[in-house]
Amino acid sequence: MFSTMQDVPLTVARILTHGATVHGRSTVTTWDGTGPVVRSYAEVGARAARLAHALHDELGVREDTVVATLMWNNAEHLEAYLAVPSMGAVLHTLNLRLPAHQLAYIVNHAADHVVIVDGTVLPLLAGVLPQLGDTLRHIVVNGPYEASLLDGFTGGVHAYEDLIDGRPDAYPWRTDIDERRAAAICYTSGTTGDPKGVVYSHRSVYLHCLQVNAADSFGLTPRDTALPVVPMFHVNAWGMPHAAYMSGANLLMPDRFLQPKPLAEMIDRVRPTVSAAVPTIWNGLLDELDAGGHDTSSLRMVVIGGSACPPALMKGFEERHGIRVVHAWGMTETSPLGTFAQPPGGLTPEQEWPYRLTQGLFPASVEARLIGPGGERMPHDGESAGELEVRGPWIAGAYFAGQGKEPERPEDKFSEDGWLRTGDVGTITPDGYLTLTDRAKDVIKSGGEWISSVELENQLMAHPEVAEAAVVAVPDEKWGERPLATVVLRPGATAGLAELRAFLAERVASWQLPERWAIVEAVPKTSVGKFDKKVIRADYAADRLEVTLLGK
Amino acid sequence: MFSTMQDVPLTVARILTHGATVHGRSTVTTWDGTGPVVRSYAEVGARAARLAHALHDELGVREDTVVATLMWNNAEHLEAYLAVPSMGAVLHTLNLRLPAHQLAYIVNHAADHVVIVDGTVLPLLAGVLPQLGDTLRHIVVNGPYEASLLDGFTGGVHAYEDLIDGRPDAYPWRTDIDERRAAAICYTSGTTGDPKGVVYSHRSVYLHCLQVNAADSFGLTPRDTALPVVPMFHVNAWGMPHAAYMSGANLLMPDRFLQPKPLAEMIDRVRPTVSAAVPTIWNGLLDELDAGGHDTSSLRMVVIGGSACPPALMKGFEERHGIRVVHAWGMTETSPLGTFAQPPGGLTPEQEWPYRLTQGLFPASVEARLIGPGGERMPHDGESAGELEVRGPWIAGAYFAGQGKEPERPEDKFSEDGWLRTGDVGTITPDGYLTLTDRAKDVIKSGGEWISSVELENQLMAHPEVAEAAVVAVPDEKWGERPLATVVLRPGATAGLAELRAFLAERVASWQLPERWAIVEAVPKTSVGKFDKKVIRADYAADRLEVTLLGK
Repeated sequence: MFSTMQDVPLTVARILTHGATVHGRSTVTTWDGTGPVVRSYAEVGARAARLAHALHDELGVREDTVVATLMWNNAEHLEAYLAVPSMGAVLHTLNLRLPAHQLAYIVNHAADHVVIVDGTVLPLLAGVLPQLGDTLRHIVVNGPYEASLLDGFTGGVHAYEDLIDGRPDAYPWRTDIDERRAAAICYTSGTTGDPKGVVYSHRSVYLHCLQVNAADSFGLTPRDTALPVVPMFHVNAWGMPHAAYMSGANLLMPDRFLQPKPLAEMIDRVRPTVSAAVPTIWNGLLDELDAGGHDTSSLRMVVIGGSACPPALMKGFEERHGIRVVHAWGMTETSPLGTFAQPPGGLTPEQEWPYRLTQGLFPASVEARLIGPGGERMPHDGESAGELEVRGPWIAGAYFAGQGKEPERPEDKFSEDGWLRTGDVGTITPDGYLTLTDRAKDVIKSGGEWISSVELENQLMAHPEVAEAAVVAVPDEKWGERPLATVVLRPGATAGLAELRAFLAERVASWQLPERWAIVEAVPKTSVGKFDKKVIRADYAADRLEVTLLGK
Repeated sequence: MFSTMQDVPLTVARILTHGATVHGRSTVTTWDGTGPVVRSYAEVGARAARLAHALHDELGVREDTVVATLMWNNAEHLEAYLAVPSMGAVLHTLNLRLPAHQLAYIVNHAADHVVIVDGTVLPLLAGVLPQLGDTLRHIVVNGPYEASLLDGFTGGVHAYEDLIDGRPDAYPWRTDIDERRAAAICYTSGTTGDPKGVVYSHRSVYLHCLQVNAADSFGLTPRDTALPVVPMFHVNAWGMPHAAYMSGANLLMPDRFLQPKPLAEMIDRVRPTVSAAVPTIWNGLLDELDAGGHDTSSLRMVVIGGSACPPALMKGFEERHGIRVVHAWGMTETSPLGTFAQPPGGLTPEQEWPYRLTQGLFPASVEARLIGPGGERMPHDGESAGELEVRGPWIAGAYFAGQGKEPERPEDKFSEDGWLRTGDVGTITPDGYLTLTDRAKDVIKSGGEWISSVELENQLMAHPEVAEAAVVAVPDEKWGERPLATVVLRPGATAGLAELRAFLAERVASWQLPERWAIVEAVPKTSVGKFDKKVIRADYAADRLEVTLLGK
């Protein structure tokens, strides 16, 4: 039996038409380096319509045409966010921090027809122009720019304001579009291999918005001002721009001013209530706030995601500045809202901490399971570790293979029954709290059991004479893999490896104890400062490490 | 271009499996008249599975079988709410306040195969058994009951606890069902004609849940306890049971104890944070709270819907008890969340009142338009009145015509392009706030313009010597319809009709001024105390009123 409900699709166009009317008085404020520039949502809606007319009439954008943005967080980026999918085209947010060859790769792979670029970022685009194919026909530049940078470009070059000027304030938005159609593309910035494209649907964007606006998530209302510090090219700024426009929450856009001082100043002056960013940003901001002189009392919550947040950082914000910090987990493939670390009810603030230090709870729309080393389901008992797999209407089930091609479903990324294999290893408590420990590629698969490299590292680094410790999997004839511990000792340390092993033996199960040990000068790091375990494994394979065998 | 998102349906089964695991420790508390009976969501999930096994194995319930409930708000009703749609069958919530002939009509019309009934309500069901056809095969009774009441029933009779006892705690829930399929049926309780069935889909229930949990709506979280005073047979208790189970908010179920004293006592003892009911209930509760002796400080919000709420009631709760009252509007056909009267940002509490006294804002998923007397779109300028039409994924587009039949789309209820004609007349401000003034059938269609009967009544009742005033439309040769004002004067009043007309002339446009006036002893009322305008119109038509003509 079918329902008697109306068959109305969930569309970005509906977010746009709603926000521009019902929440027309709400505002987006862009920080220009010295102060705020304010635009109402009604004006954003009208300007989005002008942009759509320009894209359609002048630049030949049609259904499924890909329109890219290479922009910071600002009002014009919001206009493109809303206009492009709502006219039936597809938005492609280019990550301006990608290496040049990857940036060129994704522009070509997605067959971008137009790039809208901030004038301040134009040199970056100009630099990759020689690597671009002929699909790119138009460049639209937002703000002042150096025209000579584009001398070699044979397509059309347009100034954003000139392009949209004088066009109609209304557009026949595609509120009738099939909700499963593409709204936006975002590529992963994987450190290995080419970036992979994730294509969000109108449905996934809309449902994700509803979740972001849930009380137990970001909980945006017209009485909020949201400050997305996370860039709009990072998984749609975690859904905040769409969700704010849908709910009527105001937006404060930092543009390129992501340094502690301007952030503290814009918080003080524009008074946002909610913000979101990666730990590195919050770390810098905390130092700035600790130095004093800024009023941040407007902030009710800051969301931290992207990587695990040190508890000291969370407590620093709460105890010294009264700002609640909430952990969240997600990835490009999860839109990104995967978990949100709100505590259960009925607890004291002290009792809430263990919950708040996890990655958090899955919402109803994200189903989770843990898959063990042998492919078996692991129980959600808070102890059994497995690779996290997720399923839901805003979770990717494939990667974009280019226009007109069947999406790709690589086995290491998607299970046979269609779940996303996140590549993260962790545990889930019976009441649903996720704790991630390792990347699946870093976990040590020893005799059908998993050993967490991160757990061993943390325990080793608790030794007072250990400065750093990195543990990696190395091949072992008997067990498949075994851990290799590489240790950087503090200056003047007297402990030997045997003592470190004994120290570790008191803290982890005996079968997890490494047999292979090496003292090193420094742990190799990636460009973003993470342990580069590929290099350690390669050093071991090439016999470049002086390895001591203990207890084997 | 299609997205690369997973194709995962939105289902009641997902709400069930999520709530029973991730929120397994949250609780539903049923008030038994003297105190609370507590059951965890994990237990509710296990019992729902037992119920589903019983319905499937013993009672022959299959896909699309209709299982009805005739129950108050209690834990067992919640179990049926979750189990029946999640097994692929269809829940039919029977309104136990319907007249007997309408109750029999809807049981027969929906072809209910099973009725689950509270023992306390069994006499009502027993009374209509002779009017029921042979589709009803099983009666399941929850709680103690008088078995002899069902002596005449030839189908199976089962005690709820005995029926589910000993069955498995897990069930292969239909998380894969087409989300547009029927989840639940609710009939309108229209005062004229047969009740009309609205069939909610899995999709509409799920999306509505997400909206109920939005921060700017009920905003439920695991730190909440929701008290649905509105019955679960009234439009799914406005979505609260589903939304609470999805979000992990606890539930406090009042069962049949809807009187002011037990409500005050259960609020005091179980400490709910959010509640919802019609104004009549809140009126009684306010008197009880004013009498003192109850701690209601746990309540952060009470939602009032079903009919307009007197400002004095809202202010009474806020000023004397610190409980925020929020207006909402909806109907069976709108699932019901149509509007929610949260104020815009940046206002003082005093400035918020004008917004909070409206019906409120539409969420993004509910699109609204006003249709004027000539079928034209009326502007959203806060002044132009029209019939409210709505569109959205949880808005009905047809009525249920019985199993296997094409749904009905009567012209007076659905526009040609599929919008729901609400039958309510009102205005919408440019920033989206809805104010309803009249039912469309009560509005006076005069020469292509609409005159609000309620507006004229309110203005007349502002005269110190007028006790009550009812204005109805009567036929007029020249204008089509004109207003007839019937007035009840206070004892000792000296004002004549001419004075009343002059009083009104200062307050409304001249073309809205009634020519026909009658002084009456009392305004006829319906059983729920509303003006019975049908009777007034009939009295006028039959010349039973002494009408004075003024200014014609």
